[in-house]
This record gives sequence, structure tokens and C-alpha cells, in this order.
Amino acid sequence: MKDLIKGNMLIAQSGGPSAVINRSLVGAIMEARRQKAIKGIYGALHGIKGVLEEKIIDLRKESQATLKAVAATPSSALGSVRKKPSHEDCIEIFKVLQKRDVRYFFYIGGNDSAETAYIISQEAQKAGYEMRCFHIPKTIDNDLRENDHTPGFGSAAKFVATAIAGIDLDNRALPGVHVSVIMGRHAGFLTAASALARHSQDDGPHLIYLPERPFNIDAFLNDVKNVYENLKRCVVVVSEGIADMDGTLIVSKFIKETDSHGNVQLSGTGALGDLLANEIKAKTGISRVRADTFGYLQRSFPGIVSAVDAKEAMDVGIIAVKTAVKSDSDGSIAIKRKPGKTYKVYYECVGLQQVAGATRHMPDNFIAKENNNVTMAFIDYAKPIVGELPKLGRFKAVRI
Amino acid sequence: MKDLIKGNMLIAQSGGPSAVINRSLVGAIMEARRQKAIKGIYGALHGIKGVLEEKIIDLRKESQATLKAVAATPSSALGSVRKKPSHEDCIEIFKVLQKRDVRYFFYIGGNDSAETAYIISQEAQKAGYEMRCFHIPKTIDNDLRENDHTPGFGSAAKFVATAIAGIDLDNRALPGVHVSVIMGRHAGFLTAASALARHSQDDGPHLIYLPERPFNIDAFLNDVKNVYENLKRCVVVVSEGIADMDGTLIVSKFIKETDSHGNVQLSGTGALGDLLANEIKAKTGISRVRADTFGYLQRSFPGIVSAVDAKEAMDVGIIAVKTAVKSDSDGSIAIKRKPGKTYKVYYECVGLQQVAGATRHMPDNFIAKENNNVTMAFIDYAKPIVGELPKLGRFKAVRI
Repeated sequence: MKDLIKGNMLIAQSGGPSAVINRSLVGAIMEARRQKAIKGIYGALHGIKGVLEEKIIDLRKESQATLKAVAATPSSALGSVRKKPSHEDCIEIFKVLQKRDVRYFFYIGGNDSAETAYIISQEAQKAGYEMRCFHIPKTIDNDLRENDHTPGFGSAAKFVATAIAGIDLDNRALPGVHVSVIMGRHAGFLTAASALARHSQDDGPHLIYLPERPFNIDAFLNDVKNVYENLKRCVVVVSEGIADMDGTLIVSKFIKETDSHGNVQLSGTGALGDLLANEIKAKTGISRVRADTFGYLQRSFPGIVSAVDAKEAMDVGIIAVKTAVKSDSDGSIAIKRKPGKTYKVYYECVGLQQVAGATRHMPDNFIAKENNNVTMAFIDYAKPIVGELPKLGRFKAVRI
Repeated sequence: MKDLIKGNMLIAQSGGPSAVINRSLVGAIMEARRQKAIKGIYGALHGIKGVLEEKIIDLRKESQATLKAVAATPSSALGSVRKKPSHEDCIEIFKVLQKRDVRYFFYIGGNDSAETAYIISQEAQKAGYEMRCFHIPKTIDNDLRENDHTPGFGSAAKFVATAIAGIDLDNRALPGVHVSVIMGRHAGFLTAASALARHSQDDGPHLIYLPERPFNIDAFLNDVKNVYENLKRCVVVVSEGIADMDGTLIVSKFIKETDSHGNVQLSGTGALGDLLANEIKAKTGISRVRADTFGYLQRSFPGIVSAVDAKEAMDVGIIAVKTAVKSDSDGSIAIKRKPGKTYKVYYECVGLQQVAGATRHMPDNFIAKENNNVTMAFIDYAKPIVGELPKLGRFKAVRI
């Protein structure tokens, strides 16, 4: 049995917030309190920015009641950041970590955050500094490699599916075409989850467009026209990341901002929805066309949480700390699904570089061959992660 | 005691859907089933359009279980319409009502719907057709005269306040300026309800702009800059209906569509949010600026319901039917609040013309004199209508 590394722990959160990222944080804090090897439990404010600026708080000073309340609160309680550390940043980070005798470093986030953890892990090795460096998965985009799905996705998917069920009801009451724009740059999982809103044959969403397939405006208009002719209404869901055959984002002409990871900023703007709505009005002759961009609501709305997602988010935090203390190498905790009819997961520690930087896409068997819908395989995949949606009633509607 | 009018009842829904409009419908149906004067209980599909086209369903054929499920479902279960009947329409409507021996007509909706009910009531009198014609209040905008507040407002306000609490947390995690655009053409109640999201001194929304006050872009930019300089973040909430000194809508340059009541269509577009976000970026030098337009989510999201709103929505449906059977004149059921510290309401039957057509605005004592906030009087007014919001946790955050 290896000697335990004894010292302080530092944890931080990075990237876009989610409804359950604080459960992973609180899971890690609670487990750290049970581990004798871990002395101080520190939280850096706003990710590695907080390390660099030494804005660090003492998480042993927080009461059980506070931890419980924070766990149930969306968004990143330590603050977040979108920053990829430079080599100079890393040197500064180590100065702080060494000064504070940090021997356990945990970074909660998506693939950009795994990349940051990987860079820090490599720099620690180069410097001969003994420290366990772990990534804890989080992303509503569900786009981490090695993972069956990621904490944050189930709750965001629940929000999206619930919202689309409501929009479909609204669009039945006042019929027209409604376009919803959903988060997800390169991976369509969250957009696809809107399909869980369907209960009857003619329920929306009637059309779903994913970033994994080239978006053709003429085919899109034709699809909308066909559904509208048939039902006299049409609910469309598109990913913010839809792009044309050449890979050019449909919305890219409208915005210019990029973050330090080189990602184009797509949220917080109604441009794509308005563009598509205007095209439909102009080219199909349908007069009542509306577009809504879900924006930050889908990742930060308090109270809409999938029970499965909540539990798994807590688990990955707990397991990351347990594993870090026992292990002599660094890694990321991945959620794997057991084969079989009953939903069951297990957790595996994978290499940071296996998760870092790259994006997992929707597999082909999740996307209908017409490129405007998902398959039953996707529904079967997503349903247990999202859990129960509100029950909705409808009249039999017997004509007099 | 007057002779009861015996005959059939027809009920319909009109205008924008809400989370609780079906509770008013189901309340009316259940009460009608208890009234011996009422024979057939009919529902017209899509408001008066369904009457004109004789698309009418038999609501006695619906089971108790269906009624219960429909009551808990947002949007208008009978379908809705935005249509003001012409004189010719009214003649056609009477042909149908007479043919079907309809003696009780109920129209659930906002002030446009009250106006429609008033026109039909007057035409019935002119034609000497004995029929009770009642308006049942509904509007998330909370802008009906004679009412302390309206069914639908409390639940939409709960959605808005919950969403803004989440957005404020998101904007703490990744600080910047966030602008949310909320429904409400001429009345700012729903936008104002975002203030219920505040718990601590520095919680957002930090700035609230209402249609009741002229919107000045320079004053707005100055307000944003001041908050941002102070807190390094700023959450702004604006009504979709904000207009300049001359009454010109800030968003009006971007959209042209109007409905048959002459209202400009403001929803389903991100134009106003994007316009304000771009102005902030261009004029203040703040780089991280996002805008979200809540759109249809705020009126149709399943499961976010204020308990008080749910009960009152059911009550106005029940009381409308009770009153119609007893009364020898037409009217609208208004919610009045009893004076005193404890929240208590009563219902009053008021004349249709007292509610029809015109809009109730936020009273002056609800708006802060700086024109960028609400007062404690508004918070005291709105809190009991909206009810409990999700409890949120925050770290003490003791620096090491």
C-alpha cells in the first residue's frame, strides 16, 4: 500500500454553470472531511483565476446546513472562469499551490477544464511537485469523451423538455410556427432532449436540427412547410451550433466575440432564432412565426433538477476525492453505463488527456436519417437520465 | 327571486395562454355541472373563432380525471385566438348561439377578451336574446382594471423571479452584464416581479425598466455603468414594452407585425435584448454582455405555479358560473384585496365595460423615483400573490 500524500486540498469550478455543479463541489468537500490525508479544504474563487490571484476561501469554515443549501443551488458557488492557463500562468499557479501546501487539486468543468487540469498535472510532474490533480466532469452539453453522459446534462435536458412541452401546448392554443434555440456548440444532446416532450403522435417538437448534421436552409423550409400543411402548426428546435455544409455557423455572421479557448460566443443573443423566423415568414407565407432563445435559463433555473443527475453529480465529487487519495496517478472521473434494460451506472477513473479538449458528438444511431429528428435509441438513452416530466392533461374533445 | 334561465352553456378561452387559465376553465365546468339551470356544457375551440366555425366540443363527456389533469396543465386547453369580432361576426355568433340554445356564455381572457364579451353582450341585448354573458379574468400582464391582480400573473411572476434568481447566480459565477427581456406591453407588473428574486443587498436584478416610465438610453447606460463599477456585475430586467419620451417603442424599428386588436407583436424575438446588449458593449467598454428574452417560457412552462394563483384562477371560474346563474345582468369577476396585513381576497362582479379594452398600469407608488427600480410597496403587494421561491444557498466564504 502506497504512502498517503498528506496536505491541503484545493477545489475550483470552471466553464458554464449548471443546475448540479455545486452538488459535485459539496460531494468533494464532504468526502474530503472524511479523509485524514486532507488537511485544509480550500476553494479558489473563479477557477484558476482565483488561484493566480490567491482569492481562496476556507471550506472547512462552512456549516453542514450551508453545504446542504449550496448543493441545492444552481450555478457555480465558488464562481467560474473561462480561461486556459498559459505556461506563465502555470508557473504562477505552482507558486501558490506550493506556498499553500496543496497536494490535492480538483477542477470541476467540461473538456476545456479537463485540458486545464491536464496542463497543470503535466507541469506538476515536470516540476517534481507531488500532487494529485483530478478533473470532475460537468457540462450541460453532454459532450465529454469517455462518459456515457455528464453531470448537468440531465437537469438541463429536463428544463428543455419541460419548456418544449409547454411551448407545444402554447402553439396548439395559438397555432403557428415556433422555433426554439437551444445551447450546445458542437454536440446536439441538449437540443435532442427536447424530443422527450412528446407523448402523443402529433406532439412537438416536430423538427429537431443538430450541429452534427449540415444545416440546409432550403431543406429546413421544406420540412417546416410539410409539417405545417399537415398539422397547421409546427414546433421546431435547433441547436445554437447549427452550421452549413462548409462548417460555417448559421449564426456566425451576426456575432464576433470569442473566448480564450477560441470558442465563438453563441448564447445571450436572439440572432439565430430571429434569422430562421424571418426566413420562414419570407419564404413559406406562414404569418405567425415566433422564435425563443432559451439562453441562460436552461443552465441556471433553480428547482428544475433531474433526481438521477443530482445523485450522480454528488457521486462524481465524492469518488474524485476518494480516488485521488488512493491513487498514484491523476485522472478524470467518468460515468459509464452498465449494459442491460435497467438503468445503472458505474464510475471509472480515466486519463485526463482522454477527456481533455475534444468534444464527443451525438452518435449516428441517435440521429434520424432525414437529419431533422432523433431516433428511439436516443430516447431510450436519455429518458432515465432526465427522469419524470410534469404530467399534462388534454380533453378527449368530443364534438357536439 | 328571478326565474332561472335554462339552457346550454358555452365557454371559450382567448388571448395569450397562462399557467392557470385551464384552472378557471375547469372551475367553471365543475360549477356548471352542479347547476340545474345549465344543460349542455360546451367548449368552443379557439375562442369566438370556434363559435363562428361551429367547432364546439361537449365538456360533459370529459371525465373527472381528465378535468383534474387539464386543470394542472398550462396553456389554453380549448385553444385560443386573437380576434376582435366585427359586427358581421357578431350576427354569425348569435346564429350559432341561438341554434345551440346557449344561454350562458363565458369568455376567459384579458381586456381584449372582456371587450369581446362586452360586444357580444350588447348585441345580445339589441337582439333581445336572453343570455348571460360573463368575462373571466386571465392575464400574466396583470393589467386588468378593477382587479387587484389577475389569474396567471402570480405563476408567470414566479417563473420570472425564479429565473432571475438563477441568472443572478450565473452572472455572479461568470460576471458581466445580463439583460433579460420580460413580457408586458404596457404594464410593467411582470417585469417588476423580478425584484422578488432579491434576498441579499447585492442580489440582482440591480436595474428594472418598466413601460410606465420613458426609457432613456443614456440614463440606462449610465445606470449600468454605475452598478458595474460598484459590483463588477449587473443584472438588468426590462419590459418588452419600454418606449422613449415620445412613446415610440424602443424595439419598434425592428418588427412590423400587428394583431387584429392593433397590438404590435413584441414576443418571439431577441431584437430588443440584442439592441440593448450591443449598446452596452459599444458605449461602456464592458465586454461580457448577454441578453435573454424569456419569450413563451414565462407563460407556458409546466410545473411552475403559484399556489395562491392556482386557487384564485379556479375560484374565478366557479364564481363566474354561480354569479351568472343568479344574476340578471352581465359582468366580469374581479379579484379585490381586503385591507390589512394578512393577505385575503374577495371577488366582485363588475360591469364588462369597466374591464374592457383599457389597460391598468403600475401605480406610481410601485415605481422608484429614479425610474430604474420598484419600491417596497410593490414587493409587499406582489409577494403573497407569487408565494414561495426556491431556497438558495451561499458560502460564508472566509478567506484563508
